[in-house]
Amino acid sequence: MKLYDMVKAPNPRRVRIFLAEKGVEVPRQEVDIPGGENLSPAYLAINPRGLVPTLLLEDGRTLDESMAICRYFDVLHPEPNLFGRTAWEQAEVEQLQRQMEFEGLFSIAAAFRNSAEAYATRGAAGTMPATPSIPGLTERGLLLARHWLDRLEQRLEGREFVAIDRFTVADITAYVCLDFAKWVNLRTGPEHPNINAFHARMKARPSSSA
Amino acid sequence: MKLYDMVKAPNPRRVRIFLAEKGVEVPRQEVDIPGGENLSPAYLAINPRGLVPTLLLEDGRTLDESMAICRYFDVLHPEPNLFGRTAWEQAEVEQLQRQMEFEGLFSIAAAFRNSAEAYATRGAAGTMPATPSIPGLTERGLLLARHWLDRLEQRLEGREFVAIDRFTVADITAYVCLDFAKWVNLRTGPEHPNINAFHARMKARPSSSA
Repeated sequence: MKLYDMVKAPNPRRVRIFLAEKGVEVPRQEVDIPGGENLSPAYLAINPRGLVPTLLLEDGRTLDESMAICRYFDVLHPEPNLFGRTAWEQAEVEQLQRQMEFEGLFSIAAAFRNSAEAYATRGAAGTMPATPSIPGLTERGLLLARHWLDRLEQRLEGREFVAIDRFTVADITAYVCLDFAKWVNLRTGPEHPNINAFHARMKARPSSSA
Repeated sequence: MKLYDMVKAPNPRRVRIFLAEKGVEVPRQEVDIPGGENLSPAYLAINPRGLVPTLLLEDGRTLDESMAICRYFDVLHPEPNLFGRTAWEQAEVEQLQRQMEFEGLFSIAAAFRNSAEAYATRGAAGTMPATPSIPGLTERGLLLARHWLDRLEQRLEGREFVAIDRFTVADITAYVCLDFAKWVNLRTGPEHPNINAFHARMKARPSSSA
């Protein structure tokens, strides 16, 4: 088993933090996405979709969706529980995890991918068709990402964690997004006391350096 | 309990098909999204995010992410299993469900929202900030949606279902997306025999008219 990884990128980081919280160690291999290594013949032989992270299983099967990789390990290592237990918890964790992705991660990624030189002709990830940058998406992405920050600030009022009353994958996605936002110069300020305290709590967990 | 619904829209349809497959009935109320009813004070009092579908629980709590609503009912009504059982099955279903969303649903939605008059100033859903249409997104969305069709055609070679060897939520998302694609005049042809056969199988299920 091997995890194809890129230390700086947000999606692989979500998986590494998840594994650290579960206490699971998986051999890792670094892939240079900006340099195009994920589109090299050698990498495409492992994962024809050219995505990172990719979990390669012993029998050659692969998983390349971060949340699918996390769910795989969650079934094998149920504790600590990171996806919720009751119907409400599981739904609330799923809902907040997806909000952090759709409102945070995707908005920041749109802003980043459509302004970064390395991705000028790679508007979509992996082996999706080459598409030129759409500058208007950077502006829209930043607008939506700021809205996500404002909503997250409200959400964290009186809450220690994003979804339920303990640490879950929703916190992982939120925390990783807050650091990813710095890639597009989006930073929290004194108007985000709840987020800043949340970020400090997440950073204090040993998993944050995974 | 009540499900706020819009019969024609793809996300509410995913939830209705899921409920039909589970044999669960939930009272529904129609919401006119193109007409802006989801942004009316009455609706925002129920769900401040202005999203549809929204599941309103007895105690006033709400869920407004389709997959979160499905997971809620999945815990309460585990059979028939629609999210996978083993670690591999759960991961594979999650992965394919997300591929259908990210490559299919989101591409079609981008093409539709950035070309439909009713959404000229509503580039993002619900109460997200108003953003003008970005015409380039329609072209990119169609390109990526066509790529999704080609990949799905390959995926269905020798397979009856999208993810594993029985019906799951990944099939629901794929089927709903194939119908949603018609909103942007994207249709399969004789070059998609596997998809056409899949669509016919899904349409033959009683849940398809839910």
